[in-house]
Amino acid sequence: MTPALAHLADALSAVLPPRALVTDPELIAPWLVDWRRRYHGRADLLIEPESTAQVQMVVRAAAQAGVPLVPQGGNSSMVGGATPPADASAAILSLRRLNRMRALDADAGLAVAEAGVILADLHAAALAAGRRFPLTLGARGSATVGGLVSTNAGGTQVLRFGTMRGLVAGVEAVLPDGSLHDGLSPLKKDNRGYDLNQLLIGAEGTLGIVTAAVLRLVPAVAVRAVAWVALASPDEALALLRRFQAASEAVESFELLPRESLAAVLAYLPDARAPIATDAAWHVLVEVTADHPADDPAGLVERILATALDDALIADATIAASETQADAFWRMRESISDAERATGPAAQHDISVPVDAMPRFMVEAAAACDARFPGTRASGFGHLGDGNVHFHVRAPRGSDPADWYAHQVPRVSAFVHDLVVAAGGSISAEHGIGQMKRAELERLSSPARMGALRAIKRALDPQLLFNPGKLVSFDPPVAG
Amino acid sequence: MTPALAHLADALSAVLPPRALVTDPELIAPWLVDWRRRYHGRADLLIEPESTAQVQMVVRAAAQAGVPLVPQGGNSSMVGGATPPADASAAILSLRRLNRMRALDADAGLAVAEAGVILADLHAAALAAGRRFPLTLGARGSATVGGLVSTNAGGTQVLRFGTMRGLVAGVEAVLPDGSLHDGLSPLKKDNRGYDLNQLLIGAEGTLGIVTAAVLRLVPAVAVRAVAWVALASPDEALALLRRFQAASEAVESFELLPRESLAAVLAYLPDARAPIATDAAWHVLVEVTADHPADDPAGLVERILATALDDALIADATIAASETQADAFWRMRESISDAERATGPAAQHDISVPVDAMPRFMVEAAAACDARFPGTRASGFGHLGDGNVHFHVRAPRGSDPADWYAHQVPRVSAFVHDLVVAAGGSISAEHGIGQMKRAELERLSSPARMGALRAIKRALDPQLLFNPGKLVSFDPPVAG
Repeated sequence: MTPALAHLADALSAVLPPRALVTDPELIAPWLVDWRRRYHGRADLLIEPESTAQVQMVVRAAAQAGVPLVPQGGNSSMVGGATPPADASAAILSLRRLNRMRALDADAGLAVAEAGVILADLHAAALAAGRRFPLTLGARGSATVGGLVSTNAGGTQVLRFGTMRGLVAGVEAVLPDGSLHDGLSPLKKDNRGYDLNQLLIGAEGTLGIVTAAVLRLVPAVAVRAVAWVALASPDEALALLRRFQAASEAVESFELLPRESLAAVLAYLPDARAPIATDAAWHVLVEVTADHPADDPAGLVERILATALDDALIADATIAASETQADAFWRMRESISDAERATGPAAQHDISVPVDAMPRFMVEAAAACDARFPGTRASGFGHLGDGNVHFHVRAPRGSDPADWYAHQVPRVSAFVHDLVVAAGGSISAEHGIGQMKRAELERLSSPARMGALRAIKRALDPQLLFNPGKLVSFDPPVAG
Repeated sequence: MTPALAHLADALSAVLPPRALVTDPELIAPWLVDWRRRYHGRADLLIEPESTAQVQMVVRAAAQAGVPLVPQGGNSSMVGGATPPADASAAILSLRRLNRMRALDADAGLAVAEAGVILADLHAAALAAGRRFPLTLGARGSATVGGLVSTNAGGTQVLRFGTMRGLVAGVEAVLPDGSLHDGLSPLKKDNRGYDLNQLLIGAEGTLGIVTAAVLRLVPAVAVRAVAWVALASPDEALALLRRFQAASEAVESFELLPRESLAAVLAYLPDARAPIATDAAWHVLVEVTADHPADDPAGLVERILATALDDALIADATIAASETQADAFWRMRESISDAERATGPAAQHDISVPVDAMPRFMVEAAAACDARFPGTRASGFGHLGDGNVHFHVRAPRGSDPADWYAHQVPRVSAFVHDLVVAAGGSISAEHGIGQMKRAELERLSSPARMGALRAIKRALDPQLLFNPGKLVSFDPPVAG
């Protein structure tokens, strides 16, 4: 343990309960590596405060001791955003014990959850009150409210209610000087200067430690219609999406996948079968919900699809006849990542472009990749309605995985990111920057953007102690 | 003209067309006073660039010369936010000539408007394309896109689609160093660090000069139902609002007014008559729209109101039988401010609290004011659904207006603002801070908030040249 860390641990032992200070390497070990096992850090101190006031004590003491703090929730970052630095200079600040639901008001449609509340528990609490927290994602059993807010998380149900930014009505956070930003009052109109809540959402813990949030709850789903559609191209898919959106505000998901993704899933899931017999180059999974049991989303979906068939906009379609079949459709969509991983190494990119530009991007970027890197096969799948796809470039058959990841992926990713920027897009749609995309953010951002990011970071965290090495970098590097 | 201003004018005359530089005092005069005529500034130079590139030239030259810039659109700020300082040190930077509609895509529901586009023209352009820009307010004939973005403007149609923050999909702005923040790409998911678009929205021109914005367009209104409801108290009004919101996502407005506001309007408008014969302490104007001509919002409204009558939640209600009658209802609502002004001097407050807390606040704050300042009469009216009312405290009968405004209003306003803060509310719901509320913001904000606001301002505008004296203040004051 560095002298600064020892000083911090000593100072905190006087004010925190013993169980809040963890130094046992075995207990710390699980928190030193990200869940994809790409980033390995070191830390000799894990701090687990149980209240906002304790977080303030920790932040003040760390500022005094000059110790960097790495905030952690469920440790499910996709970009190494919660992994401590390798030099063992930092302490991990876990928010997992700060996990009370402070309030839940079904009538107002608001819940106040502390940072450590797990997403699945928030879902359950909302449902128990007859409401719904609509955002969901694969890591819902471990991802926490603090991390979801700090990464402006997305997922498969963003189309109707938005990402976390659209669902957060208030933020409580401890700032780097130990002061408390109390932005929990859920005001629908508030023009008191720069919106600090918005600044903290998506800041990846580099400007403040989110300790609680007010979250919007929406009506529970009374009935839903889930359909599988076969069609010729992403252009037709976008035209179909526009028809759905013109007819209903309750389009919850509109997921697009190419023939090869479906083939991978069918090979991967032992008991899966194609929802539609028609062979088609592209497939869409669409979900429309209704809040009232008397509503008929299936009827609406059927009418739209029937007209689209008449107009030859689509090749074929089927509506899930039961909740079981709807779940089976969704299971296929949610298995794509695992199924594709099983087919061999790939370079994966979480990217977005304007929704209207996505059909062209998907086709042209795939062709450009195939031409530039002979033997690779590129394709995107995912959230067409959000302009966000996961764009995968599969290694040539017989590639050596180690060589592929070490030498080819950086070149492939730079090429893909250049195409994204040329299309006016973002190299991080929903996963954030973390450690993984810091250099690419630097390479591809305007001087105006990078200058502003750095200036804001230095202004609010002049000691650069909050989540060092994530999101923004400084040159020369700052010692911990 | 100060030497610094003369230097700036000279430098710009080499790069801008002559008409972009105005020094004629008669042409500058209209822009030196706010429309309420409360703030009077001085300026010997008015700059009217016609392109974003020209704005960048102006900002760079002003930074070089050390000249503060006061951005102006329609000059319709309610808080003196666009009035130059009195010491004649600053130049006015008018964005009115930067007024092209760069693009309008009805299918995507997006328009790209330059800062100088007037709100009414944006409304017209959207309607001509079969769409709607939903935000509207009294000053729509003069307010511009740049000002609307920079003040996060609200209005009477916020309930469904939100304030400007909910309607802005992208921002282009010139930063204080002259660099361009190009945030125009309308990405639905973008997690590349701190959200600079969100930071610029509502920053009142103190961090960047907004030059263009991408704005969301929504479906045009096919049919609407407008109803007038009489009821006993704000509690009943909130319960009624919850019933409407549970039944429909298309509740566009829910405006609450007390008996005395209605009486003032009836006395003020020569041909107006009460929509409802029933005398009641409180009244609600509710509007529900539908995007499809086949929909029946009037039927929905009628069912909800009939049930509410059966339940004795409301005393009486009527649905406008025609568009003419609907317009008449709205005219009464929109005349309240003028009508109340005609009844005598008052202290006016644009405040918000959480929606659920508003009924109690309206009743208790009015009683507290009446008790604290004998002879005054306090009441609030406005956007109950947004938790935002305009809270007026009328001077005692026979008060001398000059004495009232000079000596009583500051005490009354401080008292009202203290009540707002105690209720977890905001002293500026939709008008911003500007000059008018700067001292109150300072007095009533936590050290965390004020510290963060100042740190961000200094970080992005170290010379403190953008809209000096607005929103954040510095001590000691910075010379222009």
